[in-house]
Amino acid sequence: MLNLHSATSPRWLAQIEENLDLVLIDHAHCEKKAAGTALNLLFAYVENEPLCRAMTDIVHEELEHFHMVLDLLRRRGVRFRRLPPSKYGRRLAELVRKLEPQRAIDRLLVAGLIEARSCERFGLLRDRLSDRELADFYGGLFESEARHHATYVQLAKSFGDERAVKSRLEELAAAEAEILAASDDPPRMHS
Amino acid sequence: MLNLHSATSPRWLAQIEENLDLVLIDHAHCEKKAAGTALNLLFAYVENEPLCRAMTDIVHEELEHFHMVLDLLRRRGVRFRRLPPSKYGRRLAELVRKLEPQRAIDRLLVAGLIEARSCERFGLLRDRLSDRELADFYGGLFESEARHHATYVQLAKSFGDERAVKSRLEELAAAEAEILAASDDPPRMHS
Repeated sequence: MLNLHSATSPRWLAQIEENLDLVLIDHAHCEKKAAGTALNLLFAYVENEPLCRAMTDIVHEELEHFHMVLDLLRRRGVRFRRLPPSKYGRRLAELVRKLEPQRAIDRLLVAGLIEARSCERFGLLRDRLSDRELADFYGGLFESEARHHATYVQLAKSFGDERAVKSRLEELAAAEAEILAASDDPPRMHS
Repeated sequence: MLNLHSATSPRWLAQIEENLDLVLIDHAHCEKKAAGTALNLLFAYVENEPLCRAMTDIVHEELEHFHMVLDLLRRRGVRFRRLPPSKYGRRLAELVRKLEPQRAIDRLLVAGLIEARSCERFGLLRDRLSDRELADFYGGLFESEARHHATYVQLAKSFGDERAVKSRLEELAAAEAEILAASDDPPRMHS
């Protein structure tokens, strides 16, 4: 369902458990960036009305999640601050083809894969975190990430032949798995 | 209340009445850009929590308005499309000082002045348009623009001395009136 080519390693989970505060701050930034990505897509393809509707809904949800993470940080006494992101997003963005409509397809598929990876990891955090408040929190976010993934893949298909889009999704998913496998980033939601 | 240094000329209203479809399309783009401005401010000052909360609310409202204008266009059989904007926004952006915290103050005050001008013009459209459906539509948007103006000015004051911010608001409001007076743009919401 999530089209991912790898399962997250136990090593990632161990790193996260040791750096929960840091990962929560990174998570807040991820939600904010996800809102920015959706709004940028709305700007880029403003004449595509189904896309505009879907991006508007995603902007709303991501900003809501951003504030949920900020609230959680405040309850835990963790100061929200700037944090260098992992290289994951930038490396995925480098794979986006330059010419339309391939560019639209790739931007949507990359956004969809990031949602898929978040979804997979939120599921892992829900099932495995010993901090049960956080486990429940991630369980509550799981469904929306899965839904966003499906929305992005569906929209990508409106820009090209369904079979070609599916095949490109497989290519990008393979690249996504390689980017994570090769990551030497500090602990992040997408390290 | 709106801190504007000029009233919109009757010439503008006459131009608008003759180009309603065009102005509606431009208005949709303005709402979209207003959402983008608020999200950019959230990104730029993400550690300022009252600002983040306020920008989130504004992003939501502007995107809601964007879709309201798109719905109105569809009901009227007007195709939404790209349109070169007036030079108003760019000219105002050129006035923003480069160094913080002056930059934050100016970005917020410029955003606030754009909301104030929209508010003033929506009031004019509400009171004077012979197309009563549109007049009612603009009447319904009037209050939120006034509120956004107040929010931006209030937030600007959190970045500097209240008197200095007030004085800078007067300078920028004077410049805003000059920009509109000198405008040679085609009919737009901010021409």
